[in-house]
Amino acid sequence: MLWEVRIAYKPGVQDAEGESTLRGLHALGFDKVEEVKTAKVFVIKGDYTREEVEEMCRRLLANPVSQDYTIAEVSVE
Amino acid sequence: MLWEVRIAYKPGVQDAEGESTLRGLHALGFDKVEEVKTAKVFVIKGDYTREEVEEMCRRLLANPVSQDYTIAEVSVE
Repeated sequence: MLWEVRIAYKPGVQDAEGESTLRGLHALGFDKVEEVKTAKVFVIKGDYTREEVEEMCRRLLANPVSQDYTIAEVSVE
Repeated sequence: MLWEVRIAYKPGVQDAEGESTLRGLHALGFDKVEEVKTAKVFVIKGDYTREEVEEMCRRLLANPVSQDYTIAEVSVE
Protein backbone atom coordinates (compact mmCIF):
# COMPACT_ATOMS: atom_id res chain seq x y z
CA MET A 1 0.00 0.00 0.00
CA LEU A 2 1.17 3.50 -0.72
CA TRP A 3 0.22 6.34 1.60
CA GLU A 4 0.82 10.00 1.08
CA VAL A 5 1.13 12.14 4.17
CA ARG A 6 1.14 15.89 3.78
CA ILE A 7 2.40 18.05 6.62
CA ALA A 8 1.66 21.78 6.64
CA TYR A 9 1.88 24.52 9.20
CA LYS A 10 -1.26 25.34 11.13
CA PRO A 11 -2.87 28.68 10.29
CA GLY A 12 -1.08 31.46 12.15
CA VAL A 13 2.20 29.57 12.52
CA GLN A 14 5.16 31.18 10.79
CA ASP A 15 6.28 29.42 7.61
CA ALA A 16 9.87 30.68 7.39
CA GLU A 17 10.72 28.76 4.23
CA GLY A 18 7.60 30.08 2.53
CA GLU A 19 8.50 33.62 3.51
CA SER A 20 12.07 33.35 2.29
CA THR A 21 10.87 31.79 -0.96
CA LEU A 22 8.49 34.72 -1.39
CA ARG A 23 11.38 37.14 -0.97
CA GLY A 24 13.48 35.15 -3.42
CA LEU A 25 10.75 35.20 -6.05
CA HIS A 26 10.30 38.94 -5.58
CA ALA A 27 14.06 39.44 -5.96
CA LEU A 28 13.92 37.56 -9.28
CA GLY A 29 11.24 39.93 -10.54
CA PHE A 30 8.18 37.78 -9.78
CA ASP A 31 6.77 40.65 -7.76
CA LYS A 32 3.10 39.74 -8.27
CA VAL A 33 3.53 36.72 -6.01
CA GLU A 34 1.35 37.46 -2.97
CA GLU A 35 2.09 34.49 -0.77
CA VAL A 36 4.08 31.25 -0.65
CA LYS A 37 3.22 28.43 1.72
CA THR A 38 5.17 25.22 2.04
CA ALA A 39 4.27 21.68 2.94
CA LYS A 40 6.19 18.45 3.28
CA VAL A 41 5.09 15.21 1.70
CA PHE A 42 6.05 11.72 2.87
CA VAL A 43 5.19 8.87 0.53
CA ILE A 44 5.17 5.75 2.69
CA LYS A 45 5.16 2.26 1.25
CA GLY A 46 3.96 -0.40 3.63
CA ASP A 47 1.06 -2.57 4.61
CA TYR A 48 -0.61 -0.29 7.15
CA THR A 49 -4.09 1.03 7.81
CA ARG A 50 -5.00 4.69 7.79
CA GLU A 51 -5.20 4.60 11.58
CA GLU A 52 -1.64 3.29 11.78
CA VAL A 53 -0.42 5.99 9.40
CA GLU A 54 -2.13 8.54 11.66
CA GLU A 55 -0.14 7.11 14.53
CA MET A 56 3.07 7.58 12.50
CA CYS A 57 2.08 11.22 12.02
CA ARG A 58 1.40 11.78 15.69
CA ARG A 59 4.53 10.00 16.88
CA LEU A 60 7.13 11.03 14.30
CA LEU A 61 6.17 12.91 11.16
CA ALA A 62 4.24 15.94 12.39
CA ASN A 63 4.69 18.39 15.23
CA PRO A 64 1.23 18.47 16.81
CA VAL A 65 1.80 21.96 18.19
CA SER A 66 2.53 23.67 14.91
CA GLN A 67 1.57 21.33 12.08
CA ASP A 68 -1.49 19.68 10.58
CA TYR A 69 -1.42 16.53 8.51
CA THR A 70 -3.57 14.95 5.85
CA ILE A 71 -3.37 11.34 4.76
CA ALA A 72 -4.33 9.92 1.37
CA GLU A 73 -4.02 6.45 -0.07
CA VAL A 74 -2.46 7.03 -3.45
CA SER A 75 -2.41 3.59 -5.03
CA VAL A 76 -1.68 -0.06 -4.47
CA GLU A 77 1.64 -1.00 -5.98
CA MET B 1 -4.48 32.17 -8.96
CA LEU B 2 -3.14 29.43 -6.77
CA TRP B 3 -0.41 27.14 -8.04
CA GLU B 4 0.94 24.07 -6.37
CA VAL B 5 4.50 23.11 -7.17
CA ARG B 6 5.75 19.75 -6.01
CA ILE B 7 9.49 19.10 -5.91
CA ALA B 8 10.79 15.55 -5.60
CA TYR B 9 14.13 13.87 -6.06
CA LYS B 10 14.85 12.34 -9.43
CA PRO B 11 14.96 8.53 -9.49
CA GLY B 12 18.35 7.34 -8.27
CA VAL B 13 19.10 10.48 -6.25
CA GLN B 14 19.53 9.89 -2.53
CA ASP B 15 16.61 11.09 -0.42
CA ALA B 16 18.34 11.45 2.94
CA GLU B 17 15.27 12.70 4.79
CA GLY B 18 13.24 9.79 3.45
CA GLU B 19 15.88 7.34 4.56
CA SER B 20 16.16 8.79 8.05
CA THR B 21 12.37 8.82 8.36
CA LEU B 22 12.33 5.16 7.35
CA ARG B 23 14.82 4.39 10.12
CA GLY B 24 12.77 6.41 12.60
CA LEU B 25 9.59 4.52 11.73
CA HIS B 26 11.38 1.20 12.06
CA ALA B 27 12.73 2.26 15.45
CA LEU B 28 9.18 3.02 16.58
CA GLY B 29 8.10 -0.49 15.61
CA PHE B 30 6.63 0.25 12.19
CA ASP B 31 8.94 -2.32 10.71
CA LYS B 32 6.71 -3.21 7.76
CA VAL B 33 7.47 0.18 6.17
CA GLU B 34 9.43 -0.64 3.02
CA GLU B 35 10.26 2.81 1.73
CA VAL B 36 9.76 6.50 2.50
CA LYS B 37 10.17 9.18 -0.11
CA THR B 38 9.84 12.88 0.51
CA ALA B 39 8.74 15.81 -1.57
CA LYS B 40 8.38 19.52 -0.97
CA VAL B 41 5.29 21.49 -1.88
CA PHE B 42 5.16 25.21 -2.56
CA VAL B 43 1.70 26.76 -2.79
CA ILE B 44 2.13 30.00 -4.69
CA LYS B 45 -0.51 32.69 -4.82
CA GLY B 46 -0.15 35.11 -7.69
CA ASP B 47 -1.39 36.03 -11.13
CA TYR B 48 1.00 33.97 -13.24
CA THR B 49 0.76 31.52 -16.10
CA ARG B 50 1.93 27.92 -15.93
CA GLU B 51 4.93 28.87 -18.07
CA GLU B 52 5.91 31.56 -15.58
CA VAL B 53 5.59 29.12 -12.68
CA GLU B 54 7.84 26.74 -14.62
CA GLU B 55 10.36 29.55 -14.82
CA MET B 56 10.15 29.97 -11.02
CA CYS B 57 10.90 26.26 -10.67
CA ARG B 58 13.89 26.41 -12.98
CA ARG B 59 15.32 29.57 -11.46
CA LEU B 60 14.66 29.13 -7.76
CA LEU B 61 12.51 26.31 -6.47
CA ALA B 62 14.05 23.16 -7.92
CA ASN B 63 17.57 21.92 -8.38
CA PRO B 64 17.58 20.78 -12.02
CA VAL B 65 20.40 18.34 -11.39
CA SER B 66 18.71 16.34 -8.67
CA GLN B 67 15.04 17.28 -8.60
CA ASP B 68 11.92 17.03 -10.73
CA TYR B 69 8.92 19.29 -10.40
CA THR B 70 5.23 19.09 -11.19
CA ILE B 71 2.88 22.05 -11.36
CA ALA B 72 -0.86 22.05 -10.76
CA GLU B 73 -3.38 24.85 -10.62
CA VAL B 74 -5.31 24.14 -7.46
CA SER B 75 -8.04 26.78 -7.38
CA VAL B 76 -8.85 30.43 -7.83
CA GLU B 77 -9.18 32.17 -4.48
